[in-house]
Amino acid sequence: MSTKRVLTGITTTGTPHLGNYVGAIRPAVAASRAPGVESFYFLADYHALIKCDDPARIQRSTLEIAATWLASGLDPERVTFYRQSDIPEIPELTWLLTCVTGKGILNRAHAYKAAVDRNEAAGNDPDADVNAGLFMYPVLMGADILMFKAHEVPVGRDQIQHIEMARDMAQRFNHLYGEHFVLPEALIEESVATLPGLDGRKMSKSYDNTIPLFTPRDAMRRLIAGILTDSRAPGEAKEVEGSALFQIYQGFASAEETQALRQAYADGIAWGDAKQALFERVDREVAPMRDHYQELLAHPELLEDILQAGAAKARRLATPFIQELRHAVGLRRLSAVASAKTPAANDKVALPSFKQYREKDGLFYFKLLDAQGKLLLQSTGFEAPKAAGQAIAQLKQSPAETLQTLQGQCHLADGVDETIVLAALTALQPQDGD
Amino acid sequence: MSTKRVLTGITTTGTPHLGNYVGAIRPAVAASRAPGVESFYFLADYHALIKCDDPARIQRSTLEIAATWLASGLDPERVTFYRQSDIPEIPELTWLLTCVTGKGILNRAHAYKAAVDRNEAAGNDPDADVNAGLFMYPVLMGADILMFKAHEVPVGRDQIQHIEMARDMAQRFNHLYGEHFVLPEALIEESVATLPGLDGRKMSKSYDNTIPLFTPRDAMRRLIAGILTDSRAPGEAKEVEGSALFQIYQGFASAEETQALRQAYADGIAWGDAKQALFERVDREVAPMRDHYQELLAHPELLEDILQAGAAKARRLATPFIQELRHAVGLRRLSAVASAKTPAANDKVALPSFKQYREKDGLFYFKLLDAQGKLLLQSTGFEAPKAAGQAIAQLKQSPAETLQTLQGQCHLADGVDETIVLAALTALQPQDGD
Repeated sequence: MSTKRVLTGITTTGTPHLGNYVGAIRPAVAASRAPGVESFYFLADYHALIKCDDPARIQRSTLEIAATWLASGLDPERVTFYRQSDIPEIPELTWLLTCVTGKGILNRAHAYKAAVDRNEAAGNDPDADVNAGLFMYPVLMGADILMFKAHEVPVGRDQIQHIEMARDMAQRFNHLYGEHFVLPEALIEESVATLPGLDGRKMSKSYDNTIPLFTPRDAMRRLIAGILTDSRAPGEAKEVEGSALFQIYQGFASAEETQALRQAYADGIAWGDAKQALFERVDREVAPMRDHYQELLAHPELLEDILQAGAAKARRLATPFIQELRHAVGLRRLSAVASAKTPAANDKVALPSFKQYREKDGLFYFKLLDAQGKLLLQSTGFEAPKAAGQAIAQLKQSPAETLQTLQGQCHLADGVDETIVLAALTALQPQDGD
Repeated sequence: MSTKRVLTGITTTGTPHLGNYVGAIRPAVAASRAPGVESFYFLADYHALIKCDDPARIQRSTLEIAATWLASGLDPERVTFYRQSDIPEIPELTWLLTCVTGKGILNRAHAYKAAVDRNEAAGNDPDADVNAGLFMYPVLMGADILMFKAHEVPVGRDQIQHIEMARDMAQRFNHLYGEHFVLPEALIEESVATLPGLDGRKMSKSYDNTIPLFTPRDAMRRLIAGILTDSRAPGEAKEVEGSALFQIYQGFASAEETQALRQAYADGIAWGDAKQALFERVDREVAPMRDHYQELLAHPELLEDILQAGAAKARRLATPFIQELRHAVGLRRLSAVASAKTPAANDKVALPSFKQYREKDGLFYFKLLDAQGKLLLQSTGFEAPKAAGQAIAQLKQSPAETLQTLQGQCHLADGVDETIVLAALTALQPQDGD
């Protein structure tokens, strides 16, 4: 597989603010346009349930966040953009991973440990008011990542541990049941821009110091006017260091623009003028997106259609993959394999088979036949026998994925659908242990 | 609802033995025939993954256990008999419940605490080799029970705690999101017959002292011949107290038969003859079932069909119910409700409505109309207006369930399907909070 899969989750609580935009949304949208990358973006509403028990807020936030990402330029045709709770394979995989995850590992997860530390500092029971969702969150996140065989997950430093946990789960599962999962890597965003909020601390909903990204123009102007500054008068030189206003400006401006404001600070620009400059600069970038955003909000049915299409795209991968995983752990149809084990039957069951051969054109071919010898899959010609052999090995190893990457090099026989071929390939997988 | 729902799970590891049959299978099959009871029996294969990482064994055990229950007389037409992993709503509900379960409650679960105690006694880390599946098992069990609104769950004393936990989850969820769940009760089996095994300890796979229920006739005879006895010679009087042989006999025999063997013990029956008597008594009950069992094992595709039909029956309840629950927690289609919340729109959305009226026949009727006034549901006539009002209240409270119990008293309008009616009723539920 030549493309790299990158996966990003977005928790559906709260309303996106300028800090989210500069630190996460804008760079992620830019990254989604890079060549050779297959991007997955999902609205993490199962995660939202851990900390939010207000249903209207979850629904509202899902709407706003979906609209925000699309208004910010995410192209749902180019990427796979879906809502987590539209993928029933995710909670199922969560359970499969739960059964291969050491409980001790979860005890050490930062978010959980932080809650325990707070309780202990307050003299409470360590688990007081900690819900099991918080404790199990790394497993749900593992399912999000492993389901789509993501190679990279862009995260801040505080999230590296979760990616390591997902790797652990994948390794443990692969060790027990054969190579099914790709081991993901954390893509550490060293240079994540964090913006200060109105009061100079990091812009964050928990400090109540945010500027909502798509707040109406007037409200944006009023909020920016309220950014904390020092009391230096017009004409007095001002410090850029520690100036929330300057840092927010920098988050939107080019190097030249930033340099110009730095000079204006030195030259004693009045705070009112600096705030006006910031408002104009932010509004220049945000205004066209805001119109798009309002239009999307007014048509939730369109957003829903986009999410449904994204879910269908995601499930084209998730559905055959969970079937593969279910088979691997032993959640199998009784009719498929069991007869081999009944005392009355033979020890051997007929299996599908691959045939390799050379045609008159000098090229090497293979085909997949079912247990009764019926043609299921036919390759085109390969220059070298080794290439044909590698394709077969890959098909056996990761059926669903390889069928996709080999499109053009092999095709389904007439009247045969992909499910049948996947079932046949799964029966041939080396790691079944039966 | 006049019928009582009773739910029983069967873990799919291992091969059923005489102890399982006498202690669990036979009484459960008898209970399934009681009038006024709606029974649910499921093969708990998601649970099996907690302790078994051998896929072939899980598949084999699912086959054997399904065949055992059917051969023992469970009637899949009368009860709902399904495999847990065929119900994708179960892992989804597990996650919803995880988010309303206090982690501290799970710390106190007996099975988990026992594992911790063993580790501590051995001087290990308390969570050494404990997998998260063991820790989360009460939540999965909660989902099993609450999904089907079971009123009673027959359990041994050691399992009462799990039913209490399921009640806690239901209460917490109902408190946060409205009355959706039935609070289950443990049906404590005071008189559970436990059989001793070959060595006199409780018959249990973990002691390797079992007599498999459907082992071939010869093997059964050999195993029974190996039951531990004391060394009293033929002619010497024997004690029934502490005699494994006697207790197993008692598990199969009538009071008269038991009394006769007691007398034979007193009269000094030879151990060989007593073993022959036991073999004959057990075989008399087991032989016809064994034939049926072997036939089922030879036709796994038939078993699979039965399980698929059971899953379809179970999902007729689970699918609309999980939709109701998803809506309750906020996992909702954006198009449905969101427009009420966009700043541009009105604060009120048109809602479906009930109309009550009296016809010329003197009876009281109601109908459900959609937001545009189209007829969705029409009642038949009630003698008293109060009865019609109660039916409406129940429909609002538990849409899916009441629609079922009111069959005959109301019917869907032409061209309207049940999903539409359920969606309309769900929109009317009092507990939505939006």
